Amino acid sequence: MNHKALHKLGYGMYVIGSRKGDRLNGQIANTVFQITAEPPAIAVSINKNNLSHEFIKESKVFTASVLCQDTPLSFIGHFGFKSGRDINKLEGINYKIGETRAPVVIDNAVAYLEAEVTQEVDVGTHTIFIGKLVDANVISEEVCLTYDYYHQVKRGTTPQTAPIYIKEKG
Amino acid sequence: MNHKALHKLGYGMYVIGSRKGDRLNGQIANTVFQITAEPPAIAVSINKNNLSHEFIKESKVFTASVLCQDTPLSFIGHFGFKSGRDINKLEGINYKIGETRAPVVIDNAVAYLEAEVTQEVDVGTHTIFIGKLVDANVISEEVCLTYDYYHQVKRGTTPQTAPIYIKEKG
Repeated sequence: MNHKALHKLGYGMYVIGSRKGDRLNGQIANTVFQITAEPPAIAVSINKNNLSHEFIKESKVFTASVLCQDTPLSFIGHFGFKSGRDINKLEGINYKIGETRAPVVIDNAVAYLEAEVTQEVDVGTHTIFIGKLVDANVISEEVCLTYDYYHQVKRGTTPQTAPIYIKEKG
Repeated sequence: MNHKALHKLGYGMYVIGSRKGDRLNGQIANTVFQITAEPPAIAVSINKNNLSHEFIKESKVFTASVLCQDTPLSFIGHFGFKSGRDINKLEGINYKIGETRAPVVIDNAVAYLEAEVTQEVDVGTHTIFIGKLVDANVISEEVCLTYDYYHQVKRGTTPQTAPIYIKEKG
């Protein structure tokens, strides 16, 4: 078995916005996908150790901002490799409070989606939150960042809390 | 709400192999994703009306072949717009019988994954099948086909049974 085959799966790159009461957070995720068309529903897979997991479980809402290909690595590092337990990750970031009252990150976003959680699926280290789409909009027609581009071109790395994290051997 | 934001989500393109007893089938899907790294698990979303749904529900296994960017539209049309109820879609196709005894399509594939279903999530029109990875391999280092490339460059269309199908208005 060659686990590198898992690297061939295709994803986009997203900032997931969440809240718990008035506390706001954002984190990077690559596993956002549409679940059904009728009614429009989306899902996101979040590591149970992440603050976003606690926030989404409590508030039952999340947002997803689709990142553009030109998103700086520093921006991804800010949301992907820091914890909202230590800093307010939204400070200095251009965002709006959405229909769900969760933050919708606007910086580097080509589109955003907002969802109200209708189903939670426990898959071990992660929970898949499935949500009814409550708002969505296109911000620009820039090319979207793919997870592959992020890895191949930007030489990005993946935190150990991601579903797609694969231990490097040797 | 602008549903076109849903078009900005990023996916790959896959042939999902399935079986029921000795009957084999294959269909196109774009919603294949890794669920957890420890243990390696993947998921696929399949429309309840599809023959693959019946097959995977019965056999509890599926395979996913990751398509290369050069995959001909006719190949995608063969697996995406025909039903295994009418024809044997694997006839004339280069495939192998995998560890799961389900077909693994090799034509136009850069990698493949095989999974044993551990969880089924009913999400209305679709079921998300979550499976433990039982085999995986890389076949080539060609560029993978993305759903976006398929739509933008190849002007592909989407069958109404796909999770990402959006009714054109007007």
